[in-house]
Amino acid sequence: MLKNCLENVRNTVPLVHNITNYVTVNDVANVLLACGGSPIMSDEPEDVEEITSICGGLNINIGTLNQRSIEGMKVAGKKASELNHPILLDPVGAGASALRTNTALELMDMLNITVIRGNISEIKTLALGSGTTKGVDADVADRVTEETLDDAVRFAKNFAAQTKAIIAITGAIDLVADADACYVIRNGRPEMGKITGTGCQLSGMTTAFVVANPENKLEAVAAAVCTMGLAGELGWEHMQEGDGNSTYRNRIIDAIYNMDGDTLEKGAKYELR
Amino acid sequence: MLKNCLENVRNTVPLVHNITNYVTVNDVANVLLACGGSPIMSDEPEDVEEITSICGGLNINIGTLNQRSIEGMKVAGKKASELNHPILLDPVGAGASALRTNTALELMDMLNITVIRGNISEIKTLALGSGTTKGVDADVADRVTEETLDDAVRFAKNFAAQTKAIIAITGAIDLVADADACYVIRNGRPEMGKITGTGCQLSGMTTAFVVANPENKLEAVAAAVCTMGLAGELGWEHMQEGDGNSTYRNRIIDAIYNMDGDTLEKGAKYELR
Amino acid sequence: MLKNCLENVRNTVPLVHNITNYVTVNDVANVLLACGGSPIMSDEPEDVEEITSICGGLNINIGTLNQRSIEGMKVAGKKASELNHPILLDPVGAGASALRTNTALELMDMLNITVIRGNISEIKTLALGSGTTKGVDADVADRVTEETLDDAVRFAKNFAAQTKAIIAITGAIDLVADADACYVIRNGRPEMGKITGTGCQLSGMTTAFVVANPENKLEAVAAAVCTMGLAGELGWEHMQEGDGNSTYRNRIIDAIYNMDGDTLEKGAKYELR
Repeated sequence: MLKNCLENVRNTVPLVHNITNYVTVNDVANVLLACGGSPIMSDEPEDVEEITSICGGLNINIGTLNQRSIEGMKVAGKKASELNHPILLDPVGAGASALRTNTALELMDMLNITVIRGNISEIKTLALGSGTTKGVDADVADRVTEETLDDAVRFAKNFAAQTKAIIAITGAIDLVADADACYVIRNGRPEMGKITGTGCQLSGMTTAFVVANPENKLEAVAAAVCTMGLAGELGWEHMQEGDGNSTYRNRIIDAIYNMDGDTLEKGAKYELR
Repeated sequence: MLKNCLENVRNTVPLVHNITNYVTVNDVANVLLACGGSPIMSDEPEDVEEITSICGGLNINIGTLNQRSIEGMKVAGKKASELNHPILLDPVGAGASALRTNTALELMDMLNITVIRGNISEIKTLALGSGTTKGVDADVADRVTEETLDDAVRFAKNFAAQTKAIIAITGAIDLVADADACYVIRNGRPEMGKITGTGCQLSGMTTAFVVANPENKLEAVAAAVCTMGLAGELGWEHMQEGDGNSTYRNRIIDAIYNMDGDTLEKGAKYELR
Repeated sequence: MLKNCLENVRNTVPLVHNITNYVTVNDVANVLLACGGSPIMSDEPEDVEEITSICGGLNINIGTLNQRSIEGMKVAGKKASELNHPILLDPVGAGASALRTNTALELMDMLNITVIRGNISEIKTLALGSGTTKGVDADVADRVTEETLDDAVRFAKNFAAQTKAIIAITGAIDLVADADACYVIRNGRPEMGKITGTGCQLSGMTTAFVVANPENKLEAVAAAVCTMGLAGELGWEHMQEGDGNSTYRNRIIDAIYNMDGDTLEKGAKYELR
């Protein structure tokens, strides 16, 4: 049950090592605290081995990557792979530049990635070498809709089979798949796209969920995705006249902070395919 | 009309490449989303050419510059110049260190800068080699007041003529000038100075306005400056007992998010000189 | 009196140079503005000498350190030492990696540090070479409680005597000690630990308090610590149903913004040992 996944995070307080972009890093940290985890950030190659060793999992996000942080990702990733720590890869902007695409592909090749979480354009880029990434947002042409859902589910499962990773494709409809099963999730609100970094926040939180649920990783990823989407719905209910995307950002993090297992279990909207 | 400038942003969703400081970068991203644009951040020299190529404009902010990001600014700036993308330069702290002053001057020399936006001390430093920058805030001795306004307008127009850029000098009174005309803008509130990065936010938003209004750049910059100041006024009206600069930050971004063309047109306080 | 310490900050607007981590840097800047100071950030070795020269004090925070920023810390620190500017060291994660521990120890060796502020695990690491840092949070085994208070006070005074710095150990009970006296402070709330960076924020604010109170540094540090803890209490009173750690972050900064000397004097809970 999804509620157990959340409760395991709150009960075990997983420490997550984040190598993430400087745009949304503060929100990533606060979301990790809100869901019951504990964040630490470090990207210096000389620092990351020890930091990742004291953590339970590693969240690699390639937004605002640079040569030093790429090296940090590799060093940390190798150590985390050695230690059998779960690793999440968030391929921000894959498809928008060769450096981003190639870095993501190289990390996938080199490391035991547990979860890849991105928008549909980023994931298509990694799977097919194509995809039409428009900056850091998914391209309209790629979007998962009710019409394209069957194809998208098949694509996600195939890519999971190929990579041996759990694939989380988030958007209006979210997909969380391994080779055999796919959660189709319909939580969330379109206004979440007007806040920078809800995807990055989800990646940090997902890492904590996977660390806290080692026997149940697919469901843990689905639980994290449902938590984020449901927080978007519950946070929206607290919006008042004059509020906008900045207040909404706070409301979503607050809703994660206040989420309990029963609320998640009741509010999660998903089917398994 | 100013309202058209804002509506063009909302209708065209300009993608803006930002090379900006890590202090205020999250707010810059959320303000770009609030006004209707779309942000992407990248400062790695190997990444910036492709990123800037898929964008409509480039926002260069030299706060927390370093040797790598300076190289990124140059590479991105050259590419953006080649592509005739508008470039905004925010010379944060010019006058406070030789590295900042010289980097700003070098970028002005090397690139086709469309807009230079800073406080009066920073702009004086670039124009006169003097100016008495006190950290990242304008020095009192430099401030634009009703008494010094005529001189300041003349100065802004002359510097615009010399640089062929639109000059935006923001403070208690804001000036937006090209060689021939100067908007004198009296929106905003003094409490905005107690929030870090309202200037950086404005620079990001201004880039989006210029991208969305290629035939009408001077008015577009004035519209962005009025939008920011008016958001400061409208956000203030939502402040309640116990609120301070952190809540005010959110209120301003929320007010931009909710701003429509008519509100801007009615609330903008400017004269053309 | 503590109230004078705060009022001196508001009256003199101390400019503080921060070399700090990119996770919490925006909040550090807004807290500095909220308390009456003025922040500037710079970590590029070529930039920091001039920047620190125009400031009143230097705040060095080693979270997300890298080889470039470590060099920046050394260059800035040497210049600040030469100029007799107060320097605060926040040894984030000392004990969690050799690079962090050694960087902190090297800076202590090389510079005239005025204040060292950290959690008990970080400070023990620096004092004893041990300490059981768990990421960036203090280990439960180390925590200062009413039972271990006498020992902790003695430890803080001894470390102050050894380092000739004021030692601020923050947690459920806060200690601010020089060789002869120790403030034992009981402001604050446990929920503050669910917000990223309240420690970093306090370090920035403490630097401003020390700059503004050169004749009275021990009391100035105690005043800053009480201001932060009391803001945590006052901010909490404004929390409403549905609010969580993100809103609480804003509430605390708002409470600092609205804090006056009398409120601080009346609300501060401390004893001198």
